[in-house]
Amino acid sequence: MRRFVSGVLSSYQKRSLSHRSLRFFSSTTSLPNSDSPSSSSSAAMPTPVTLETINPKVLECEYAVRGEIVTLAQRLQQELQEKPGSLPFDEILYCNIGNPQSLGQQPITFFREVIALCDHPPILDKSETQGLFSADAIERAWQILDQIPGRATGAYSHSQGIKGLRDTIAAGIEARDGFPSNPNDIFLTDGASPAVHMMMQLLIRTEKDGILCPIPQYPLYSASIVLHGGTLVPYYLDEATGWGLEISELQKQLEDAKSKGITVRALVVINPGNPTGQVLSEDNQRDIVEFCKKEGLVLLADEVYQENVYVPDKKFHSFKKISRSMGYGEEDISVVSFQSVSKGYYGECGKRGGYMEVTGFGADVREQIYKVASVNLCSNITGQILASLVMSPPKVGDESYESYFMEKDGILSSLATRAKTLEDALNSLEGVTCNKAEGAMYLFPRIHLPEKAIKAAEAAKTAPDAFYARRLLNATGIVVVPGSGFGQVPGTWHFRCTILPQEDKIPAVVSRLTEFHKGFMEEFRD
Amino acid sequence: MRRFVSGVLSSYQKRSLSHRSLRFFSSTTSLPNSDSPSSSSSAAMPTPVTLETINPKVLECEYAVRGEIVTLAQRLQQELQEKPGSLPFDEILYCNIGNPQSLGQQPITFFREVIALCDHPPILDKSETQGLFSADAIERAWQILDQIPGRATGAYSHSQGIKGLRDTIAAGIEARDGFPSNPNDIFLTDGASPAVHMMMQLLIRTEKDGILCPIPQYPLYSASIVLHGGTLVPYYLDEATGWGLEISELQKQLEDAKSKGITVRALVVINPGNPTGQVLSEDNQRDIVEFCKKEGLVLLADEVYQENVYVPDKKFHSFKKISRSMGYGEEDISVVSFQSVSKGYYGECGKRGGYMEVTGFGADVREQIYKVASVNLCSNITGQILASLVMSPPKVGDESYESYFMEKDGILSSLATRAKTLEDALNSLEGVTCNKAEGAMYLFPRIHLPEKAIKAAEAAKTAPDAFYARRLLNATGIVVVPGSGFGQVPGTWHFRCTILPQEDKIPAVVSRLTEFHKGFMEEFRD
Repeated sequence: MRRFVSGVLSSYQKRSLSHRSLRFFSSTTSLPNSDSPSSSSSAAMPTPVTLETINPKVLECEYAVRGEIVTLAQRLQQELQEKPGSLPFDEILYCNIGNPQSLGQQPITFFREVIALCDHPPILDKSETQGLFSADAIERAWQILDQIPGRATGAYSHSQGIKGLRDTIAAGIEARDGFPSNPNDIFLTDGASPAVHMMMQLLIRTEKDGILCPIPQYPLYSASIVLHGGTLVPYYLDEATGWGLEISELQKQLEDAKSKGITVRALVVINPGNPTGQVLSEDNQRDIVEFCKKEGLVLLADEVYQENVYVPDKKFHSFKKISRSMGYGEEDISVVSFQSVSKGYYGECGKRGGYMEVTGFGADVREQIYKVASVNLCSNITGQILASLVMSPPKVGDESYESYFMEKDGILSSLATRAKTLEDALNSLEGVTCNKAEGAMYLFPRIHLPEKAIKAAEAAKTAPDAFYARRLLNATGIVVVPGSGFGQVPGTWHFRCTILPQEDKIPAVVSRLTEFHKGFMEEFRD
Repeated sequence: MRRFVSGVLSSYQKRSLSHRSLRFFSSTTSLPNSDSPSSSSSAAMPTPVTLETINPKVLECEYAVRGEIVTLAQRLQQELQEKPGSLPFDEILYCNIGNPQSLGQQPITFFREVIALCDHPPILDKSETQGLFSADAIERAWQILDQIPGRATGAYSHSQGIKGLRDTIAAGIEARDGFPSNPNDIFLTDGASPAVHMMMQLLIRTEKDGILCPIPQYPLYSASIVLHGGTLVPYYLDEATGWGLEISELQKQLEDAKSKGITVRALVVINPGNPTGQVLSEDNQRDIVEFCKKEGLVLLADEVYQENVYVPDKKFHSFKKISRSMGYGEEDISVVSFQSVSKGYYGECGKRGGYMEVTGFGADVREQIYKVASVNLCSNITGQILASLVMSPPKVGDESYESYFMEKDGILSSLATRAKTLEDALNSLEGVTCNKAEGAMYLFPRIHLPEKAIKAAEAAKTAPDAFYARRLLNATGIVVVPGSGFGQVPGTWHFRCTILPQEDKIPAVVSRLTEFHKGFMEEFRD
């Protein structure tokens, strides 16, 4: 049978796999950084995997939300466990990441009841179950199981997710927006991050493809653009006007990119904003839609904080709703909306559920997205179920409605209180200015650091805001992310701090932060 | 505040994001297939997203396991639902994919009890729970919750997965292999597929980087290599010797690739084999380790079928165990082992749990893998818990042990029976030869098609095995994957069929397949 192994391209190689996957080269030139011999000598030297020989895109990618400050925090936490009392604080407060349940937020009971029942359906018709679970959770679990072929919650689903769950989600979107949603437009994913990766993978061909991203931005965007080999085209949010998003700035940066040979393919908008917390006005959203339409850009709408709005004068509107209300349909504009079970009042980060609603793409392109989704088979079913639940929570009259509403309202109003308390505390600090968190889960205060602190940071070979964040952590146990991880106007310094510590911790956070800041400013006063 | 938006690279752009992510070009040349104007005129034309303007790697990637045959099957299934009795069969039998629970395999009760309790811990200390769940499941749920910081199953975990669960998995690996395993080497992932992607992303720099893959192979490998822009370097398994893996073939293909300027970076071995079902002998495994060591290749060991061995004379050995037993340690060889909760006797595909054990990489490279894992935050916690459970199932003496063992043994011995029955049935067909399924979940019979069938396929513009598979589906409702989706020796034709239909369905599968095959051969007899 060895006869078929020919040294040249076989007809199989030309045909059976894709025309690219078996490409061979006649060139014998070695790659830079590659130590493989170009001869076919059998005394080949090993090619160890080193920083010099890994994919440079991996090396270049940055993700500050879990960067060195977090590594230091983990070390300190271990120190606290091993030697209690050895540090000036007795716990680490992770304000670096939007991870509510890690800071004590409790899950919504109804959601957890339903997923537990779907995980172990044999208990559904046992009498003891009635005493443990609410009646509508039991009913909902049956409904969901009936939507799953063979009631098999342990089977791979359709690559886009279980059809019945997508129907529920589409109905939820329709109820939210007042415009139709097509279940075939929904792609269920393991959280929003893989969905963003999928779109970047689809859109980015070479480094000459650009993606317009806000600065400051959530570093998933910069990281995924780098990993997929594209170019981030920044547009700056205006801190002076509450992190305003101005069309003139978009236009200017687009033209600038074009003049440099970049094909801008998409615009990322995060609304409510991360790390900046602003909620866009409807007028502003319409202008953004118009801009994308005019420039032929895909609108990548990060709408994972759609339930997190804390001010009465602002309301969340999906970009799809806005574009439909302007009369733009499938043929007119490509809008991708990302949603996640990790945020909102549910905060189910660990369940890795989410979806993207993909509109305004041709059937042939959609088929390509489906194919890429298929290579990873499907997203996790528990996350899929949860995504359907957050888009169809209990309704008035359901047994769980009251407790569900109390839990939801308790979380959201407490988040609003915490946001305001922390914002006020930050604004009372010398040299700190902080915009309001209208939505999302973050404050992004600007810190005007003394020249002496900036020099000290330089000497420590670190960015001034990273220097500040490290000092803060070492003194108080509070973990924040330096602004440089999100991007900021050159010469300005910020940090991102979540509003997620539970209410009873907030006074301690405020006093520890205030005390630290005073000491820091004293130490480095010019 | 608008003053900071300069037209040239700002110091921020040079510094704050990675040096690559904000690269700008002075060239004004348009990209091929790009319709963006190179001028910076404001009357820009839209850049619609079309097949011509998406990432060509996406277009080139193929994934037959969920390809057009499956799309046809889904259409037929809908037809059956809408018009029962309209087709010559009354159900679709999905033998295209290793998805046991979709075909009626029941989950292991203990595992499901534990994850249901972890999803909804408030019931753990209710008296009704004692009546619904086994005592050791309740105890295990407590143990696991205690390993999770704050018992928060809804929080993002450490990017590699919850440390306590990694400890359990490492202990399980140690018990399996008799050699130490380090929890810090474990990266928990949403199934094995994202882990494979992660390694491809790390290793592939350009199309001049090659990955040695078996042919036939599971198309995750060809797809992920294409998506990451590398080159698949094929090595052929020898069908005549039961899909034997010969070192001389590896050597030959490696030299061939080198002579064409390809730097081969890794060797993929799937053991037990997919789609080929062979289990490697220990001697063979030692030779493979020696080959990787000598050639400096990373050994990517797909070991997701480690529990699926059906013949008494073969046993699963992990490649890490083999290399350690040869005296090779961390410094000597890089081995990555992939494991999944989707296979084995558990078959929990929908839970998307899995891990990779990464050994023989420097701390600096490991940090890069950690960073890439961090960009997606973490894998789903239910899948993480399940991965720890499959590596530490109930033990003799535990309350659940007996029922657990009965369930496990029932599934595995039934799979062995089904494999043998289907293998015999296939071998009894005219022109069909089928190697034994020693392990995994598949048979990969060769079909010697009549010339007339090959001509008919050509006329239908499809591969002959795809033509056969489509005819089979239309006549019987049985879904198989054409061999061309996995790669095969040019001029030979195969299909992959799972051994997963439940035992009571097997007689019908055999008779429908046999009847179809006879008719097909009659119709196309030369």
